[in-house]
Amino acid sequence: MKIHDQYRERVNSRLDRYLSSIPSSSIISSELKDIMKYSVLAGGKRFRPILTYTVASLFNSDIEKADSSACAIELIHIYSLIHDDLPAMDDDDIRHNQPANHKVFGEAQAILAGDGLQALAFSIISSDPLVDADTKIKLLELLSISSYAMAEGQSIDLSIVSKKVDQNILNQMHQKKTGALLNCAIKFGALLNNASENDLSILESFANLVGLAYQVQDDVLDVTTSDEVLGKRQNSDAVKNKPSYPVIIGLDESIKTFENLYQSALNELSDLSVDSEPLRLLTKRLMNRAF
Amino acid sequence: MKIHDQYRERVNSRLDRYLSSIPSSSIISSELKDIMKYSVLAGGKRFRPILTYTVASLFNSDIEKADSSACAIELIHIYSLIHDDLPAMDDDDIRHNQPANHKVFGEAQAILAGDGLQALAFSIISSDPLVDADTKIKLLELLSISSYAMAEGQSIDLSIVSKKVDQNILNQMHQKKTGALLNCAIKFGALLNNASENDLSILESFANLVGLAYQVQDDVLDVTTSDEVLGKRQNSDAVKNKPSYPVIIGLDESIKTFENLYQSALNELSDLSVDSEPLRLLTKRLMNRAF
Repeated sequence: MKIHDQYRERVNSRLDRYLSSIPSSSIISSELKDIMKYSVLAGGKRFRPILTYTVASLFNSDIEKADSSACAIELIHIYSLIHDDLPAMDDDDIRHNQPANHKVFGEAQAILAGDGLQALAFSIISSDPLVDADTKIKLLELLSISSYAMAEGQSIDLSIVSKKVDQNILNQMHQKKTGALLNCAIKFGALLNNASENDLSILESFANLVGLAYQVQDDVLDVTTSDEVLGKRQNSDAVKNKPSYPVIIGLDESIKTFENLYQSALNELSDLSVDSEPLRLLTKRLMNRAF
Repeated sequence: MKIHDQYRERVNSRLDRYLSSIPSSSIISSELKDIMKYSVLAGGKRFRPILTYTVASLFNSDIEKADSSACAIELIHIYSLIHDDLPAMDDDDIRHNQPANHKVFGEAQAILAGDGLQALAFSIISSDPLVDADTKIKLLELLSISSYAMAEGQSIDLSIVSKKVDQNILNQMHQKKTGALLNCAIKFGALLNNASENDLSILESFANLVGLAYQVQDDVLDVTTSDEVLGKRQNSDAVKNKPSYPVIIGLDESIKTFENLYQSALNELSDLSVDSEPLRLLTKRLMNRAF
Protein backbone atom coordinates (compact mmCIF):
# COMPACT_ATOMS: atom_id res chain seq x y z
CA MET A 1 0.00 0.00 0.00
CA LYS A 2 1.30 3.44 -0.88
CA ILE A 3 2.37 5.65 2.00
CA HIS A 4 -0.38 8.23 1.35
CA ASP A 5 -2.99 5.49 1.47
CA GLN A 6 -1.49 4.28 4.72
CA TYR A 7 -1.79 7.79 6.16
CA ARG A 8 -5.38 8.01 4.94
CA GLU A 9 -6.28 4.72 6.58
CA ARG A 10 -4.46 5.77 9.71
CA VAL A 11 -6.38 9.02 10.14
CA ASN A 12 -9.65 7.26 9.27
CA SER A 13 -9.13 4.73 12.03
CA ARG A 14 -7.99 7.38 14.53
CA LEU A 15 -11.01 9.58 13.77
CA ASP A 16 -13.36 6.62 14.17
CA ARG A 17 -11.73 5.58 17.43
CA TYR A 18 -11.78 9.13 18.78
CA LEU A 19 -15.42 9.82 17.97
CA SER A 20 -16.46 6.44 19.30
CA SER A 21 -14.76 7.25 22.60
CA ILE A 22 -17.10 10.18 23.26
CA PRO A 23 -19.54 9.06 25.96
CA SER A 24 -23.12 8.58 24.80
CA SER A 25 -25.64 10.80 26.51
CA SER A 26 -28.23 8.02 26.36
CA ILE A 27 -30.97 10.61 26.90
CA ILE A 28 -32.13 10.65 23.32
CA SER A 29 -31.97 8.46 20.25
CA SER A 30 -30.43 10.72 17.61
CA GLU A 31 -27.19 11.85 19.13
CA LEU A 32 -24.83 14.66 18.18
CA LYS A 33 -22.02 12.12 18.23
CA ASP A 34 -23.67 10.09 15.46
CA ILE A 35 -24.53 13.21 13.49
CA MET A 36 -20.87 14.21 13.54
CA LYS A 37 -19.76 10.67 12.66
CA TYR A 38 -21.98 10.68 9.57
CA SER A 39 -19.86 13.44 8.05
CA VAL A 40 -16.48 12.64 9.58
CA LEU A 41 -16.48 9.03 8.41
CA ALA A 42 -17.99 9.77 4.98
CA GLY A 43 -14.58 9.55 3.37
CA GLY A 44 -12.83 12.36 1.60
CA LYS A 45 -9.28 12.73 0.42
CA ARG A 46 -7.87 13.39 3.90
CA PHE A 47 -5.44 15.66 2.15
CA ARG A 48 -4.74 17.84 5.19
CA PRO A 49 -3.88 14.98 7.59
CA ILE A 50 -1.75 13.37 4.86
CA LEU A 51 0.17 16.66 4.62
CA THR A 52 0.69 16.70 8.40
CA TYR A 53 1.92 13.10 8.49
CA THR A 54 4.15 13.64 5.47
CA VAL A 55 5.81 16.77 6.86
CA ALA A 56 6.20 15.10 10.27
CA SER A 57 7.90 12.15 8.55
CA LEU A 58 10.56 14.46 7.06
CA PHE A 59 11.71 15.18 10.60
CA ASN A 60 11.81 11.49 11.62
CA SER A 61 8.92 11.99 13.97
CA ASP A 62 7.14 9.19 15.85
CA ILE A 63 4.00 8.91 13.77
CA GLU A 64 1.87 8.48 16.92
CA LYS A 65 2.79 12.00 17.98
CA ALA A 66 1.17 13.37 14.82
CA ASP A 67 -2.16 11.55 15.23
CA SER A 68 -3.95 14.19 17.30
CA SER A 69 -2.78 16.99 14.99
CA ALA A 70 -3.85 15.05 11.90
CA CYS A 71 -7.28 14.36 13.40
CA ALA A 72 -7.74 17.93 14.65
CA ILE A 73 -7.04 19.49 11.27
CA GLU A 74 -9.49 17.11 9.59
CA LEU A 75 -12.19 17.80 12.22
CA ILE A 76 -11.90 21.53 11.51
CA HIS A 77 -12.06 20.88 7.77
CA ILE A 78 -15.17 18.72 8.10
CA TYR A 79 -16.93 21.19 10.40
CA SER A 80 -16.34 23.82 7.70
CA LEU A 81 -17.80 21.57 4.98
CA ILE A 82 -20.94 20.90 7.06
CA HIS A 83 -21.48 24.63 7.64
CA ASP A 84 -20.57 25.60 4.05
CA ASP A 85 -23.17 23.18 2.68
CA LEU A 86 -26.02 24.78 4.68
CA PRO A 87 -28.86 26.44 2.75
CA ALA A 88 -27.90 29.84 4.19
CA MET A 89 -24.35 29.36 2.90
CA ASP A 90 -23.47 27.50 -0.32
CA ASP A 91 -26.65 25.41 -0.25
CA ASP A 92 -25.18 22.10 -1.42
CA ASP A 93 -27.17 18.86 -1.14
CA ILE A 94 -24.43 16.35 -1.87
CA ARG A 95 -21.05 15.88 -0.24
CA HIS A 96 -18.76 12.89 -0.74
CA ASN A 97 -21.47 11.23 -2.83
CA GLN A 98 -23.95 11.18 0.04
CA PRO A 99 -26.62 13.65 1.13
CA ALA A 100 -25.13 16.65 2.95
CA ASN A 101 -25.40 16.53 6.76
CA HIS A 102 -28.33 18.96 6.97
CA LYS A 103 -30.29 16.96 4.37
CA VAL A 104 -30.26 14.00 6.74
CA PHE A 105 -30.37 15.57 10.21
CA GLY A 106 -31.82 19.00 9.58
CA GLU A 107 -30.16 22.41 9.66
CA ALA A 108 -30.12 22.87 13.41
CA GLN A 109 -28.34 19.59 14.13
CA ALA A 110 -25.93 20.22 11.23
CA ILE A 111 -24.98 23.61 12.69
CA LEU A 112 -24.42 21.95 16.08
CA ALA A 113 -22.43 19.08 14.55
CA GLY A 114 -20.08 21.67 13.03
CA ASP A 115 -19.89 23.55 16.32
CA GLY A 116 -19.17 20.34 18.20
CA LEU A 117 -16.45 19.27 15.76
CA GLN A 118 -14.65 22.57 16.13
CA ALA A 119 -14.62 22.15 19.92
CA LEU A 120 -13.40 18.55 19.61
CA ALA A 121 -10.50 19.60 17.36
CA PHE A 122 -9.15 21.69 20.23
CA SER A 123 -9.94 18.95 22.71
CA ILE A 124 -8.07 16.18 20.89
CA ILE A 125 -4.84 18.17 20.82
CA SER A 126 -5.04 19.64 24.31
CA SER A 127 -5.67 16.20 25.83
CA ASP A 128 -2.96 14.32 23.90
CA PRO A 129 -0.53 12.78 26.43
CA LEU A 130 2.16 12.21 23.76
CA VAL A 131 2.82 15.89 23.04
CA ASP A 132 4.47 18.23 25.57
CA ALA A 133 2.66 21.34 26.82
CA ASP A 134 4.86 23.90 25.05
CA THR A 135 4.37 22.19 21.69
CA LYS A 136 0.64 21.78 22.27
CA ILE A 137 0.31 25.51 22.89
CA LYS A 138 2.07 26.25 19.58
CA LEU A 139 -0.26 23.83 17.77
CA LEU A 140 -3.39 25.21 19.43
CA GLU A 141 -2.40 28.81 18.81
CA LEU A 142 -1.86 28.09 15.10
CA LEU A 143 -5.01 25.98 14.83
CA SER A 144 -7.17 28.67 16.40
CA ILE A 145 -5.95 31.52 14.21
CA SER A 146 -6.16 29.29 11.12
CA SER A 147 -9.70 28.24 11.99
CA TYR A 148 -10.66 31.88 12.49
CA ALA A 149 -9.07 32.86 9.15
CA MET A 150 -11.05 30.09 7.45
CA ALA A 151 -14.34 31.47 8.81
CA GLU A 152 -13.29 34.96 7.74
CA GLY A 153 -12.45 33.66 4.25
CA GLN A 154 -15.88 32.08 3.91
CA SER A 155 -17.44 35.33 5.11
CA ILE A 156 -15.59 37.23 2.37
CA ASP A 157 -16.47 34.55 -0.19
CA LEU A 158 -20.18 34.94 0.51
CA SER A 159 -19.99 38.71 0.40
CA ILE A 160 -18.43 38.78 -3.09
CA VAL A 161 -20.99 36.48 -4.75
CA SER A 162 -22.31 38.13 -7.92
CA LYS A 163 -19.69 40.86 -7.63
CA LYS A 164 -16.97 41.63 -10.13
CA VAL A 165 -13.70 41.07 -8.32
CA ASP A 166 -10.15 40.96 -9.61
CA GLN A 167 -7.65 38.15 -9.23
CA ASN A 168 -5.95 39.86 -6.31
CA ILE A 169 -9.14 39.83 -4.21
CA LEU A 170 -9.78 36.23 -5.18
CA ASN A 171 -6.25 35.32 -4.04
CA GLN A 172 -6.69 37.07 -0.70
CA MET A 173 -10.03 35.42 -0.08
CA HIS A 174 -8.68 31.95 -0.84
CA GLN A 175 -5.55 32.54 1.21
CA LYS A 176 -7.88 32.74 4.21
CA LYS A 177 -10.60 30.32 3.20
CA THR A 178 -8.38 27.41 2.12
CA GLY A 179 -4.78 28.52 2.50
CA ALA A 180 -4.79 29.12 6.25
CA LEU A 181 -5.81 25.55 7.12
CA LEU A 182 -3.40 24.02 4.58
CA ASN A 183 -0.63 26.15 6.03
CA CYS A 184 -1.62 24.88 9.48
CA ALA A 185 -1.59 21.24 8.33
CA ILE A 186 1.90 21.65 6.89
CA LYS A 187 3.35 23.55 9.84
CA PHE A 188 1.85 21.08 12.32
CA GLY A 189 4.25 18.46 11.01
CA ALA A 190 7.19 20.79 11.64
CA LEU A 191 6.03 22.24 14.99
CA LEU A 192 5.59 18.73 16.38
CA ASN A 193 9.29 18.24 15.83
CA ASN A 194 10.75 21.55 16.92
CA ALA A 195 11.82 22.39 13.40
CA SER A 196 14.17 25.37 13.00
CA GLU A 197 12.86 28.85 12.24
CA ASN A 198 14.43 28.57 8.81
CA ASP A 199 12.64 25.31 7.97
CA LEU A 200 9.38 26.74 9.30
CA SER A 201 9.68 29.78 7.08
CA ILE A 202 10.44 27.62 4.00
CA LEU A 203 7.40 25.49 4.76
CA GLU A 204 5.31 28.64 5.18
CA SER A 205 6.25 29.82 1.67
CA PHE A 206 5.66 26.31 0.33
CA ALA A 207 2.24 26.22 2.03
CA ASN A 208 1.17 29.59 0.61
CA LEU A 209 2.02 28.48 -2.93
CA VAL A 210 0.41 25.05 -2.58
CA GLY A 211 -2.68 26.58 -0.98
CA LEU A 212 -3.25 28.93 -3.88
CA ALA A 213 -2.39 26.26 -6.48
CA TYR A 214 -4.88 23.90 -4.86
CA GLN A 215 -7.67 26.46 -5.03
CA VAL A 216 -7.07 27.50 -8.65
CA GLN A 217 -6.99 23.79 -9.49
CA ASP A 218 -10.28 23.30 -7.59
CA ASP A 219 -11.90 25.97 -9.72
CA VAL A 220 -10.58 24.26 -12.87
CA LEU A 221 -11.80 20.83 -11.73
CA ASP A 222 -15.19 22.35 -10.88
CA VAL A 223 -15.56 23.12 -14.59
CA THR A 224 -13.95 20.02 -16.10
CA THR A 225 -14.91 17.10 -13.85
CA SER A 226 -18.16 15.14 -13.52
CA ASP A 227 -20.39 15.27 -10.42
CA GLU A 228 -19.72 11.65 -9.59
CA VAL A 229 -15.95 12.01 -9.53
CA LEU A 230 -16.11 15.27 -7.57
CA GLY A 231 -18.59 13.82 -5.08
CA LYS A 232 -20.55 17.07 -5.34
CA ARG A 233 -22.29 19.09 -8.04
CA GLN A 234 -20.18 20.07 -11.01
CA ASN A 235 -19.99 23.64 -12.24
CA SER A 236 -21.35 24.78 -8.90
CA ASP A 237 -19.33 28.03 -8.90
CA ALA A 238 -20.86 29.21 -12.16
CA VAL A 239 -24.37 28.18 -11.11
CA LYS A 240 -23.96 30.17 -7.89
CA ASN A 241 -22.46 33.14 -9.67
CA LYS A 242 -19.26 32.86 -7.64
CA PRO A 243 -16.16 34.54 -9.01
CA SER A 244 -13.63 31.88 -10.05
CA TYR A 245 -10.25 31.78 -11.80
CA PRO A 246 -11.55 30.28 -15.08
CA VAL A 247 -14.12 33.08 -15.27
CA ILE A 248 -11.59 35.84 -14.56
CA ILE A 249 -8.50 34.63 -16.42
CA GLY A 250 -9.82 31.79 -18.62
CA LEU A 251 -9.44 28.01 -18.35
CA ASP A 252 -6.07 27.63 -20.11
CA GLU A 253 -4.48 30.45 -18.14
CA SER A 254 -5.90 28.95 -14.91
CA ILE A 255 -4.32 25.59 -15.66
CA LYS A 256 -0.99 27.26 -16.42
CA THR A 257 -1.29 29.27 -13.18
CA PHE A 258 -1.80 26.34 -10.85
CA GLU A 259 0.91 24.29 -12.54
CA ASN A 260 3.38 27.17 -12.14
CA LEU A 261 2.39 27.64 -8.51
CA TYR A 262 2.99 23.95 -7.71
CA GLN A 263 6.34 24.18 -9.50
CA SER A 264 7.35 27.22 -7.43
CA ALA A 265 6.26 25.36 -4.29
CA LEU A 266 8.52 22.45 -5.24
CA ASN A 267 11.42 24.85 -5.80
CA GLU A 268 11.01 26.22 -2.25
CA LEU A 269 11.71 22.79 -0.78
CA SER A 270 15.33 22.62 -1.99
CA ASP A 271 16.58 24.64 0.95
CA LEU A 272 15.01 22.53 3.70
CA SER A 273 17.53 21.10 6.18
CA VAL A 274 15.97 17.64 5.79
CA ASP A 275 15.31 15.34 2.82
CA SER A 276 12.10 16.65 1.26
CA GLU A 277 11.45 13.77 -1.18
CA PRO A 278 8.22 12.47 0.44
CA LEU A 279 6.73 15.98 0.37
CA ARG A 280 7.81 16.47 -3.27
CA LEU A 281 6.10 13.22 -4.18
CA LEU A 282 2.90 14.31 -2.47
CA THR A 283 2.99 17.71 -4.16
CA LYS A 284 3.36 16.07 -7.58
CA ARG A 285 0.43 13.77 -6.86
CA LEU A 286 -1.62 16.80 -5.94
CA MET A 287 -0.62 18.58 -9.12
CA ASN A 288 -1.97 15.64 -11.11
CA ARG A 289 -5.11 15.02 -9.05
CA ALA A 290 -8.35 14.50 -10.96
CA PHE A 291 -10.67 15.58 -8.12
CA MET B 1 -18.53 50.89 42.13
CA LYS B 2 -19.39 47.40 43.28
CA ILE B 3 -16.82 44.71 42.59
CA HIS B 4 -19.12 42.81 40.18
CA ASP B 5 -19.66 45.95 38.16
CA GLN B 6 -15.91 46.48 38.08
CA TYR B 7 -15.46 42.95 36.72
CA ARG B 8 -18.17 43.55 34.13
CA GLU B 9 -16.51 46.76 32.95
CA ARG B 10 -13.17 45.02 32.95
CA VAL B 11 -14.30 42.18 30.69
CA ASN B 12 -16.17 44.62 28.44
CA SER B 13 -13.04 46.68 27.87
CA ARG B 14 -10.87 43.58 27.38
CA LEU B 15 -13.31 42.10 24.85
CA ASP B 16 -13.45 45.39 22.94
CA ARG B 17 -9.68 45.71 22.95
CA TYR B 18 -9.20 42.11 21.84
CA LEU B 19 -11.68 42.24 18.96
CA SER B 20 -10.33 45.59 17.82
CA SER B 21 -6.83 44.08 17.66
CA ILE B 22 -7.88 41.60 14.95
CA PRO B 23 -6.39 42.84 11.67
CA SER B 24 -8.91 44.15 9.16
CA SER B 25 -9.00 42.26 5.89
CA SER B 26 -9.74 45.50 4.03
CA ILE B 27 -11.00 43.45 1.07
CA ILE B 28 -14.65 44.06 1.75
CA SER B 29 -16.81 46.52 3.61
CA SER B 30 -18.86 44.33 5.94
CA GLU B 31 -16.32 42.41 7.91
CA LEU B 32 -16.65 39.34 10.10
CA LYS B 33 -14.86 41.25 12.83
CA ASP B 34 -17.61 43.89 12.93
CA ILE B 35 -20.32 41.25 12.75
CA MET B 36 -18.84 39.55 15.81
CA LYS B 37 -18.42 42.88 17.61
CA TYR B 38 -22.10 43.67 17.14
CA SER B 39 -23.02 40.74 19.38
CA VAL B 40 -20.02 40.68 21.70
CA LEU B 41 -20.33 44.33 22.68
CA ALA B 42 -24.14 44.30 22.91
CA GLY B 43 -23.99 44.04 26.66
CA GLY B 44 -25.28 41.17 28.70
CA LYS B 45 -24.80 40.25 32.33
CA ARG B 46 -21.25 38.94 31.81
CA PHE B 47 -22.12 36.46 34.50
CA ARG B 48 -19.57 33.84 33.42
CA PRO B 49 -16.55 36.18 33.36
CA ILE B 50 -17.66 37.64 36.71
CA LEU B 51 -17.65 34.10 38.11
CA THR B 52 -14.13 33.52 36.76
CA TYR B 53 -12.80 36.79 38.21
CA THR B 54 -14.53 36.17 41.53
CA VAL B 55 -13.18 32.63 41.95
CA ALA B 56 -9.72 33.79 40.87
CA SER B 57 -9.87 36.53 43.51
CA LEU B 58 -10.42 33.95 46.27
CA PHE B 59 -6.96 32.60 45.51
CA ASN B 60 -5.31 36.07 45.54
CA SER B 61 -4.64 35.88 41.83
CA ASP B 62 -3.27 38.71 39.74
CA ILE B 63 -6.44 39.84 38.03
CA GLU B 64 -4.57 40.31 34.72
CA LYS B 65 -3.91 36.59 34.60
CA ALA B 66 -7.66 35.92 34.52
CA ASP B 67 -8.45 38.30 31.64
CA SER B 68 -7.97 35.83 28.78
CA SER B 69 -9.99 33.15 30.57
CA ALA B 70 -12.79 35.61 31.34
CA CYS B 71 -12.89 36.77 27.72
CA ALA B 72 -12.70 33.24 26.30
CA ILE B 73 -15.63 31.97 28.32
CA GLU B 74 -17.74 34.97 27.27
CA LEU B 75 -16.80 34.52 23.60
CA ILE B 76 -18.01 30.90 23.74
CA HIS B 77 -21.22 32.02 25.46
CA ILE B 78 -21.89 34.70 22.84
CA TYR B 79 -21.17 32.36 19.93
CA SER B 80 -23.77 29.99 21.41
CA LEU B 81 -26.35 32.78 21.69
CA ILE B 82 -25.83 33.81 18.04
CA HIS B 83 -26.29 30.22 16.85
CA ASP B 84 -29.19 29.51 19.25
CA ASP B 85 -31.08 32.53 17.91
CA LEU B 86 -30.93 31.31 14.29
CA PRO B 87 -34.22 30.46 12.53
CA ALA B 88 -33.19 26.79 12.29
CA MET B 89 -32.61 26.72 16.05
CA ASP B 90 -34.67 28.74 18.57
CA ASP B 91 -35.64 31.39 15.99
CA ASP B 92 -35.36 34.45 18.23
CA ASP B 93 -35.38 37.97 16.76
CA ILE B 94 -34.28 39.95 19.78
CA ARG B 95 -31.24 39.56 22.02
CA HIS B 96 -30.08 42.09 24.59
CA ASN B 97 -32.79 44.46 23.42
CA GLN B 98 -31.40 44.69 19.90
CA PRO B 99 -32.12 42.67 16.75
CA ALA B 100 -30.46 39.24 16.83
CA ASN B 101 -27.23 38.96 14.81
CA HIS B 102 -28.84 37.15 11.85
CA LYS B 103 -31.61 39.78 11.62
CA VAL B 104 -28.94 42.38 10.86
CA PHE B 105 -26.26 40.47 8.93
CA GLY B 106 -28.15 37.47 7.57
CA GLU B 107 -27.99 33.83 8.58
CA ALA B 108 -24.78 32.94 6.77
CA GLN B 109 -22.73 35.70 8.38
CA ALA B 110 -24.30 34.96 11.79
CA ILE B 111 -23.25 31.31 11.53
CA LEU B 112 -19.73 32.41 10.59
CA ALA B 113 -19.61 34.99 13.39
CA GLY B 114 -20.38 32.19 15.87
CA ASP B 115 -17.79 29.94 14.25
CA GLY B 116 -15.20 32.70 14.36
CA LEU B 117 -15.91 33.51 18.01
CA GLN B 118 -15.41 29.90 19.04
CA ALA B 119 -12.01 29.86 17.30
CA LEU B 120 -11.03 33.16 18.94
CA ALA B 121 -11.90 31.84 22.40
CA PHE B 122 -9.19 29.20 21.98
CA SER B 123 -6.86 31.75 20.42
CA ILE B 124 -7.08 34.28 23.25
CA ILE B 125 -6.06 31.73 25.87
CA SER B 126 -3.39 29.94 23.85
CA SER B 127 -1.69 33.23 22.98
CA ASP B 128 -1.78 34.75 26.48
CA PRO B 129 1.81 35.50 27.57
CA LEU B 130 0.81 35.84 31.26
CA VAL B 131 -0.24 32.21 31.75
CA ASP B 132 2.25 29.31 31.72
CA ALA B 133 1.92 26.50 29.18
CA ASP B 134 0.86 23.77 31.63
CA THR B 135 -1.94 25.93 33.01
CA LYS B 136 -3.04 26.99 29.54
CA ILE B 137 -3.37 23.34 28.51
CA LYS B 138 -5.60 22.67 31.54
CA LEU B 139 -7.76 25.68 30.65
CA LEU B 140 -7.99 24.75 26.96
CA GLU B 141 -8.80 21.13 27.71
CA LEU B 142 -11.62 22.16 30.02
CA LEU B 143 -12.87 24.86 27.64
CA SER B 144 -13.00 22.47 24.70
CA ILE B 145 -14.92 19.72 26.47
CA SER B 146 -17.27 22.29 28.02
CA SER B 147 -17.89 23.89 24.65
CA TYR B 148 -18.60 20.47 23.14
CA ALA B 149 -20.99 19.61 26.00
CA MET B 150 -22.82 22.89 25.41
CA ALA B 151 -23.39 22.03 21.72
CA GLU B 152 -24.53 18.54 22.74
CA GLY B 153 -26.92 20.05 25.29
CA GLN B 154 -28.46 22.30 22.65
CA SER B 155 -28.75 19.30 20.33
CA ILE B 156 -30.67 17.40 23.03
CA ASP B 157 -32.78 20.48 23.79
CA LEU B 158 -33.91 20.74 20.17
CA SER B 159 -34.66 17.04 19.94
CA ILE B 160 -37.00 17.08 22.96
CA VAL B 161 -39.15 20.00 21.78
CA SER B 162 -42.83 19.03 21.93
CA LYS B 163 -41.95 15.81 23.75
CA LYS B 164 -43.05 14.82 27.22
CA VAL B 165 -39.88 14.53 29.29
CA ASP B 166 -39.39 14.10 33.02
CA GLN B 167 -37.40 16.31 35.35
CA ASN B 168 -34.42 13.96 35.22
CA ILE B 169 -34.01 14.37 31.46
CA LEU B 170 -34.45 18.12 31.79
CA ASN B 171 -31.70 18.18 34.43
CA GLN B 172 -29.31 16.19 32.26
CA MET B 173 -29.97 18.37 29.24
CA HIS B 174 -29.35 21.57 31.21
CA GLN B 175 -26.26 20.15 32.87
CA LYS B 176 -24.75 20.06 29.39
CA LYS B 177 -26.37 23.07 27.79
CA THR B 178 -25.75 25.59 30.59
CA GLY B 179 -24.02 23.75 33.41
CA ALA B 180 -20.86 22.75 31.55
CA LEU B 181 -19.87 26.32 30.67
CA LEU B 182 -20.72 27.64 34.15
CA ASN B 183 -18.61 24.85 35.62
CA CYS B 184 -15.81 25.88 33.27
CA ALA B 185 -16.09 29.56 34.28
CA ILE B 186 -15.87 28.64 37.95
CA LYS B 187 -13.00 26.16 37.60
CA PHE B 188 -11.03 28.57 35.39
CA GLY B 189 -10.60 30.82 38.43
CA ALA B 190 -9.17 27.91 40.41
CA LEU B 191 -7.05 26.33 37.64
CA LEU B 192 -5.36 29.68 37.00
CA ASN B 193 -4.06 29.49 40.56
CA ASN B 194 -3.10 25.85 40.92
CA ALA B 195 -5.87 25.24 43.42
CA SER B 196 -5.72 21.92 45.30
CA GLU B 197 -7.66 18.87 44.10
CA ASN B 198 -9.88 19.24 47.14
CA ASP B 199 -10.77 22.87 46.37
CA LEU B 200 -11.39 21.96 42.72
CA SER B 201 -13.75 19.19 43.69
CA ILE B 202 -15.67 21.49 46.08
CA LEU B 203 -15.98 24.08 43.31
CA GLU B 204 -17.16 21.37 40.92
CA SER B 205 -20.03 20.44 43.27
CA PHE B 206 -20.78 24.12 43.81
CA ALA B 207 -20.82 24.68 40.04
CA ASN B 208 -23.19 21.78 39.37
CA LEU B 209 -25.68 23.09 41.93
CA VAL B 210 -25.44 26.71 40.76
CA GLY B 211 -25.73 25.63 37.12
CA LEU B 212 -28.97 23.79 37.73
CA ALA B 213 -30.33 26.52 40.02
CA TYR B 214 -29.58 29.12 37.35
CA GLN B 215 -31.47 27.19 34.70
CA VAL B 216 -34.56 26.48 36.83
CA GLN B 217 -34.55 30.18 37.73
CA ASP B 218 -34.27 31.07 34.02
CA ASP B 219 -37.38 29.03 33.31
CA VAL B 220 -39.19 30.81 36.15
CA LEU B 221 -38.07 34.25 34.94
CA ASP B 222 -39.16 33.33 31.42
CA VAL B 223 -42.71 33.08 32.77
CA THR B 224 -42.70 35.96 35.24
CA THR B 225 -40.60 38.74 33.66
CA SER B 226 -41.39 41.25 30.92
CA ASP B 227 -39.70 41.21 27.48
CA GLU B 228 -37.99 44.49 28.11
CA VAL B 229 -36.31 43.40 31.33
CA LEU B 230 -35.31 40.02 29.86
CA GLY B 231 -33.97 41.63 26.68
CA LYS B 232 -35.72 38.88 24.71
CA ARG B 233 -39.25 37.55 24.25
CA GLN B 234 -41.06 36.56 27.41
CA ASN B 235 -42.74 33.17 27.73
CA SER B 236 -40.67 31.95 24.80
CA ASP B 237 -40.39 28.39 26.20
CA ALA B 238 -44.15 27.92 26.27
CA VAL B 239 -44.63 29.49 22.82
CA LYS B 240 -42.02 27.10 21.41
CA ASN B 241 -43.47 24.12 23.23
CA LYS B 242 -40.21 23.54 25.07
CA PRO B 243 -40.34 21.45 28.23
CA SER B 244 -39.59 23.65 31.26
CA TYR B 245 -39.56 23.30 35.03
CA PRO B 246 -42.70 25.42 35.63
CA VAL B 247 -44.57 23.19 33.16
CA ILE B 248 -43.36 19.94 34.72
CA ILE B 249 -43.37 20.74 38.44
CA GLY B 250 -45.31 24.01 38.63
CA LEU B 251 -44.20 27.58 39.31
CA ASP B 252 -44.13 27.50 43.12
CA GLU B 253 -42.24 24.22 43.24
CA SER B 254 -39.77 25.58 40.63
CA ILE B 255 -39.07 28.63 42.78
CA LYS B 256 -38.56 26.44 45.84
CA THR B 257 -36.28 24.17 43.82
CA PHE B 258 -33.89 26.85 42.60
CA GLU B 259 -33.74 28.51 46.03
CA ASN B 260 -32.84 25.18 47.63
CA LEU B 261 -30.21 24.51 44.99
CA TYR B 262 -28.54 27.88 45.57
CA GLN B 263 -28.64 27.20 49.31
CA SER B 264 -26.97 23.81 48.84
CA ALA B 265 -24.36 25.46 46.62
CA LEU B 266 -23.60 27.98 49.38
CA ASN B 267 -23.25 25.14 51.89
CA GLU B 268 -20.61 23.48 49.70
CA LEU B 269 -18.35 26.50 50.01
CA SER B 270 -17.75 26.11 53.77
CA ASP B 271 -15.01 23.53 53.22
CA LEU B 272 -12.91 25.60 50.78
CA SER B 273 -9.33 26.22 51.98
CA VAL B 274 -9.72 29.94 51.21
CA ASP B 275 -12.16 32.64 52.31
CA SER B 276 -15.21 32.18 50.10
CA GLU B 277 -17.06 35.38 51.05
CA PRO B 278 -16.85 37.09 47.60
CA LEU B 279 -18.26 33.97 45.93
CA ARG B 280 -21.04 33.71 48.53
CA LEU B 281 -21.98 37.31 47.87
CA LEU B 282 -22.13 36.68 44.13
CA THR B 283 -24.23 33.54 44.62
CA LYS B 284 -26.72 35.46 46.77
CA ARG B 285 -26.97 38.19 44.13
CA LEU B 286 -27.67 35.52 41.54
CA MET B 287 -30.35 33.97 43.72
CA ASN B 288 -32.11 37.33 43.82
CA ARG B 289 -31.61 38.30 40.20
CA ALA B 290 -34.62 39.64 38.31
CA PHE B 291 -33.36 38.72 34.81
